[in-house]
Amino acid sequence: MTPPSPEAIELYDTTLRDGTQREGVSLSAVDKIRIAQLLDTLGVAFIELGWPGSNPKDVEAFDRARDLPWQNAKIAAFGATRRAGTTAGGDPQIAALLATGAPVCTIFGKSSMLHVREVLRVSPDENLRMIADSVQYLVESGRRVVYDAEHFFDGCRDDAAYAMETVRAAARAGAEVVVLCDSNGGTLPSEIDGRVRSVLADLRTTVGIHAHNDAECGVANSLAAVQAGAKHVQGTINGYGERCGNANLCSIAPTLEVKLGVRCLRDGALAQLTHAARQVAEIANLAPDTHAPYVGRSAFAHKGGVHVAAIRRHPRAYEHIDPALVGNRTRVVVSELSGRGNVMAKAEEFGVDLDGAEHAVLRGVKDLEARGYAFEAAEASVALLMRRQSPGYTPPFDLVDYKVIVHKRPNEESYSDAGIKIRVRGEVVHTAAEGNGPVSALDAALRKALTAAYPEVNGIRLEDYKVRILDGVAGTSATVRVLIDNGFGEERWTTVGASSDVIEASWLALVDGIEYGLAVARASRSAQKGAA
Amino acid sequence: MTPPSPEAIELYDTTLRDGTQREGVSLSAVDKIRIAQLLDTLGVAFIELGWPGSNPKDVEAFDRARDLPWQNAKIAAFGATRRAGTTAGGDPQIAALLATGAPVCTIFGKSSMLHVREVLRVSPDENLRMIADSVQYLVESGRRVVYDAEHFFDGCRDDAAYAMETVRAAARAGAEVVVLCDSNGGTLPSEIDGRVRSVLADLRTTVGIHAHNDAECGVANSLAAVQAGAKHVQGTINGYGERCGNANLCSIAPTLEVKLGVRCLRDGALAQLTHAARQVAEIANLAPDTHAPYVGRSAFAHKGGVHVAAIRRHPRAYEHIDPALVGNRTRVVVSELSGRGNVMAKAEEFGVDLDGAEHAVLRGVKDLEARGYAFEAAEASVALLMRRQSPGYTPPFDLVDYKVIVHKRPNEESYSDAGIKIRVRGEVVHTAAEGNGPVSALDAALRKALTAAYPEVNGIRLEDYKVRILDGVAGTSATVRVLIDNGFGEERWTTVGASSDVIEASWLALVDGIEYGLAVARASRSAQKGAA
Repeated sequence: MTPPSPEAIELYDTTLRDGTQREGVSLSAVDKIRIAQLLDTLGVAFIELGWPGSNPKDVEAFDRARDLPWQNAKIAAFGATRRAGTTAGGDPQIAALLATGAPVCTIFGKSSMLHVREVLRVSPDENLRMIADSVQYLVESGRRVVYDAEHFFDGCRDDAAYAMETVRAAARAGAEVVVLCDSNGGTLPSEIDGRVRSVLADLRTTVGIHAHNDAECGVANSLAAVQAGAKHVQGTINGYGERCGNANLCSIAPTLEVKLGVRCLRDGALAQLTHAARQVAEIANLAPDTHAPYVGRSAFAHKGGVHVAAIRRHPRAYEHIDPALVGNRTRVVVSELSGRGNVMAKAEEFGVDLDGAEHAVLRGVKDLEARGYAFEAAEASVALLMRRQSPGYTPPFDLVDYKVIVHKRPNEESYSDAGIKIRVRGEVVHTAAEGNGPVSALDAALRKALTAAYPEVNGIRLEDYKVRILDGVAGTSATVRVLIDNGFGEERWTTVGASSDVIEASWLALVDGIEYGLAVARASRSAQKGAA
Repeated sequence: MTPPSPEAIELYDTTLRDGTQREGVSLSAVDKIRIAQLLDTLGVAFIELGWPGSNPKDVEAFDRARDLPWQNAKIAAFGATRRAGTTAGGDPQIAALLATGAPVCTIFGKSSMLHVREVLRVSPDENLRMIADSVQYLVESGRRVVYDAEHFFDGCRDDAAYAMETVRAAARAGAEVVVLCDSNGGTLPSEIDGRVRSVLADLRTTVGIHAHNDAECGVANSLAAVQAGAKHVQGTINGYGERCGNANLCSIAPTLEVKLGVRCLRDGALAQLTHAARQVAEIANLAPDTHAPYVGRSAFAHKGGVHVAAIRRHPRAYEHIDPALVGNRTRVVVSELSGRGNVMAKAEEFGVDLDGAEHAVLRGVKDLEARGYAFEAAEASVALLMRRQSPGYTPPFDLVDYKVIVHKRPNEESYSDAGIKIRVRGEVVHTAAEGNGPVSALDAALRKALTAAYPEVNGIRLEDYKVRILDGVAGTSATVRVLIDNGFGEERWTTVGASSDVIEASWLALVDGIEYGLAVARASRSAQKGAA
């Protein structure tokens, strides 16, 4: 049977060290400090800022961290046990740990006989001395020491008695936490449970878990360890990390707090989790994972008509928790599978009074989706569809005509030229522009044509442009769907266009993006006036 | 303690039904058949093709599936129990299940008292009759019946006795499998274990698990159920599904086979898993998840210097399994480009004698990849790159010039016209054609220009056309990558082009597709002559 979980555990974040091992992630010292401050606000107990012995960027991060006011977190410096055949005091890598001034030093050592013999190539006894000396030296130097028992679970499968001796050596030398690491990430929850219990039966020190996600069990393994009695959990924001990532703190924290009643964040911080997860993604310059548990944009999105009807009857019918608990929200996806309820829910969300036009809007949605539109990812286009049905709406401009020419000679860049004619406030504007390709030429021409009437058009950013072919088998005559992500200040919105002609599909999405953007710009101007 | 796991379990794939609930996924009937054929090759026991009662596209998929030779899998049709106050025989949605001709019918019913009262709004007894009648009617109609007990685990928390009655009703009525569904995806492995054991103690029917990933435990929950005795596991390829996705079969299958010794795929199929996962992503036009366990491009990638040094000393030092078992490979990120040995192996595979040009080819590959090409999925373009380096290769045609005009007036279809000039066997051919869009106009013009010299060009089919944007932040000036799938007779090949201009990228992939196709056509003609 499951024993009672602890009342509270300490979270140890390693986004800034193990997280940066993810392919494509590179954080500057300033990025690291920004993320550390976010983590501190959440109430994470330990923040591992880097490995000072491994690169100068991390040394700079520790320098910056030293004088900052940390509210909740202790800063930790990461390193290895001393080299074989030296003393801990004489090891420059350990000196670098002390030089950071960080109050916590985390060192990893080998718990697996295979690693001791094949990778480290030292005797089992020397490895035990390396662990004990290094921990003791750091403790005597006035540091709190976290000991990471690398490859602990794999080590147990090789030689469980030796693996246990390594963690005993660390505990006896004064480590305040002994962290059992599943470094290759392949251990399963059923095995974690038993191993954690054995260690707890043997040591009086706090036991922690450091899991990876190579068998897609990183979160489950961390939970299994807590349920077995571990009181310290290491992981990263968004599960960033080498290979398949580290255990994802954005899933572990809400599960512990909401489902298991185990405290791990500052009071009230859980509701900031979604925001923090997305900010970390932005700082790391990675697209946030839409489908991430708890914090993803789709984590509480409902597409099927059956589900949407059910959540209108009972909000929790298809939601495992109230999304507001983690700062996320329910989203109804308007799509071909949806009914009138979806449209009404959406109109409420946009603040559009459809006044009986629900059926016309729904017909419009279904009609356009049959022609290849996909509104579920393009809410701004849905909002425009609704606005265009409300009486008194005047679009800021209308298309009269466009013509695009693409010219290519061998060994030359291709050349694109777009001419457009649009009607703006009763006048026809006729202009032209060049671009890298036909779509960027059209985009440039449209902005040029609108600048006189709407100078704010130049504040609208085109942030992403996605093309998808819908019906593969029709080859180049297939319907093409274009999605455009737009931005203005802090606001972001997505628009869609579809056609068998990629240029026309792009034009439709471009026009929606600008039309919606002009309304955003107007609203932001009025808000500023109101505030002044 | 963990009881012995079963020796084998049956996998039930619902990528084509529950998987399509993922935001942004929309599969045509042809796409569904292509994915089903891949799953059949892997040895999945059941393939849920769709919900015939919910949309006409699924009816078409069942029509296409009926006469195909399925080697390993049974096709399943998905639906709901009958409506309240009718008979199963009189319910059009159940009639639609039978009309598919699928040998297996899977129906879901309510196991949660909350859902019975608040969503369905029928009496608990009527709900039990709805379950029993529907199962019995389908069994009497000669179908094998899988019963999905929706919200089973949530239902147990509300009213465990009633939840148990619902699965008993299905089992008594003749369901061959009772599947316990964690429909909201918020249940934890520790709870799954006990519930599955209780049901197994009560029923003699096979028990299955259907998990979602809302607490990032979809895979762990499926494994916990198997370790508790479940013998049927539902999930999707790449974990596609609504909200945070379904349980990921691409993680479950290798863990079961490699780590727990539980068979679930055809002999030898595990080594095709990586390929299958990526193909399904391509067909769904989703970028494969680089960091996915087992099948991701980074799943066995090593970045940290320590890890790279260690894996050079001992290959398994930082790998939980041999990547070849799942058809993946170790990758060192430091120099992520392939070496000379790689190019030579590829040339042998294509039967091209590079005769010292390996370095030139390697430079070409690196150069083009830096500009946005991706050769991994486009081997025909790699083969052409090699042929163009071999002495004596004469391309069947060369581009002199092209010009495309796209014209659009409001409320009219857009109009595309392509003029091209190419050199064929020493003569310049200048011609023009129209198309649905600029790319189809170019395609038509190219074929027209080649017909006189190479009439076989008309046997080359353009089977799929995919566009991907590589550098999101550059907006409409971003690099565009086009992949084209081509066919001639039984042969299929893929070509790639990249440019900031979507028309040019398409042209490059089109030209490679036709150039490679002319060689395929020639080879097939000689083979026929040889046979005659």
